[in-house]
Amino acid sequence: MNTSLQNILLPISDELAQLDRVISQLLNSEVPFVKTVAEYVLSNGGKRLRPILTILSARLSGSKGAVVYNMAACIEFIHTASLMHDDVVDHAKLRRGRPSANAKWGNHVAVLVGDFFYCRGSQLLTQQGDLKILKIVTDTITATTEGEVLEIIKSFDLSTDLADYLSIINRKTALLMAAACEVGAVLGNVPEEFQKALWAYGENLGMAFQLADDILDYTSSEDIFGKTNGIDLQEGKLTLPLILSLKQASEAEAKIMKSALMAERVEKDLFGQVYAIIKKYGGFEATFDLARDYVEKAKAQLIPFRASLEKDILLALADYVLERDN
Amino acid sequence: MNTSLQNILLPISDELAQLDRVISQLLNSEVPFVKTVAEYVLSNGGKRLRPILTILSARLSGSKGAVVYNMAACIEFIHTASLMHDDVVDHAKLRRGRPSANAKWGNHVAVLVGDFFYCRGSQLLTQQGDLKILKIVTDTITATTEGEVLEIIKSFDLSTDLADYLSIINRKTALLMAAACEVGAVLGNVPEEFQKALWAYGENLGMAFQLADDILDYTSSEDIFGKTNGIDLQEGKLTLPLILSLKQASEAEAKIMKSALMAERVEKDLFGQVYAIIKKYGGFEATFDLARDYVEKAKAQLIPFRASLEKDILLALADYVLERDN
Repeated sequence: MNTSLQNILLPISDELAQLDRVISQLLNSEVPFVKTVAEYVLSNGGKRLRPILTILSARLSGSKGAVVYNMAACIEFIHTASLMHDDVVDHAKLRRGRPSANAKWGNHVAVLVGDFFYCRGSQLLTQQGDLKILKIVTDTITATTEGEVLEIIKSFDLSTDLADYLSIINRKTALLMAAACEVGAVLGNVPEEFQKALWAYGENLGMAFQLADDILDYTSSEDIFGKTNGIDLQEGKLTLPLILSLKQASEAEAKIMKSALMAERVEKDLFGQVYAIIKKYGGFEATFDLARDYVEKAKAQLIPFRASLEKDILLALADYVLERDN
Repeated sequence: MNTSLQNILLPISDELAQLDRVISQLLNSEVPFVKTVAEYVLSNGGKRLRPILTILSARLSGSKGAVVYNMAACIEFIHTASLMHDDVVDHAKLRRGRPSANAKWGNHVAVLVGDFFYCRGSQLLTQQGDLKILKIVTDTITATTEGEVLEIIKSFDLSTDLADYLSIINRKTALLMAAACEVGAVLGNVPEEFQKALWAYGENLGMAFQLADDILDYTSSEDIFGKTNGIDLQEGKLTLPLILSLKQASEAEAKIMKSALMAERVEKDLFGQVYAIIKKYGGFEATFDLARDYVEKAKAQLIPFRASLEKDILLALADYVLERDN
């Protein structure tokens, strides 16, 4: 885990240790190999940002019991399921610097253990038995899946604009972060307006998170980011840095960007040319500025909440999203 | 659809038409392409056996409302999700004689639209809001997924025995048919013993169904079965006809069977040799005899139920499982 994130989360390290214990117990399966794969996938040093949002939102809303950890684990399982299926879809070889499950055990295992994570998440929701939470989470997973299909449809589509892009990242990333927060608020049974505020905090945080991710895909060092660089370009995904620069680029420059998007393999040299064009037109800065706007909107949602340790951490997490290098 | 099945289902053709309408409405998605793929997959002339079991069990238990069709659709969606993911896992090119979704649109679309079917199923369960049904279905999907992982682990494993095989087909096929029936019984709110009886009917039917399927994989004509022949052998799956014959085969015959299981491609000639060895040792007959036992057990579960149209159809469906050629 990133040092600055570790520092932010230091005050809740007991809670995070408890989350780890709960998650490990919940991975028991009648088929031991399922647990082996599931533990491998979950022990990859991921940030656990989504379950942390659930725990913090729940505590901010006055709920701390065992059920909070179960719901936090549920959110992490659903996120993990979608990551595993994404890695199959994207043929990703690495996940946080280690072989992805599909690279290690094949697509079949990754698809099925991904399904297992969805199932275990659904079992947790059913066991908890709160129909409002069930609705929040199942509606969110449906929208997330639709967002991922939308992203595939829009791949290689050079007419993809800001509105398309925002709609995709809202579904594929922001809504689950929003749901992670809202579930915590519902567990705490706070008034509707506070539930909505935490939902909106999560949504704005998620937008900023994905914008930052899409910048990092171009700019990060592979060793730190833990993923291969330039994956989006390789996969034909038009993200905001590219979309914004493509609009301003000369005909010759646009041709270079298009050929990179369409190429079967984007070589280092071609990637460097695209990177330079985006940099020239300020595509990274403009994307970062938008991410900063979302961070400010996220933080503003927390104004009505009393001062507390949990509020401080949520505010710090919002800033962290822009500072992170992985 | 098979003629004999059509005849069996003739008395409930209005109900089946209603099921089709409900399913079509439930496929609406904010991303139209999702509906396109989902409709393609569902319009493949599949038997809809599982939702039919739900409708018949519900009617036998005195429930006929709109909720019955929603739950029947939910069961079909979950089954479809697992078929789509299976086809990705098995690299299947055909599904009921037409290109599979993965062959037509790629693995990425098949994985995600499969996820969409799971999500839509979960939404239906949540909307219905019966926690007992939620638990039945989510526990069943988890077991099904675990069964599919177990099947992969046991692929190419020549020590796979009858017990292993029965455990795999119970999870991957029988439990969902059992759940399809139990959900109908729960909707009708019949006494526990009738719920259990319908569950057991579905479980035994499912066992017989999969045994028959595993025979058909060797013996059927490709045109009628709608799937490529000999897939199990090609995929290294040891099914009962092979398991039983392998035990009795000579060393030379066992060698042929092993080489077919391990081969990257099983050519027609090699497949013919394996087929002849299974036939010689009565592997198909023994498998069929076991399937017949399960059919009898399934039918016996229905004894306590009053005579009715629905009971007659359920009895006829049990016999159909052995007669079918696709």
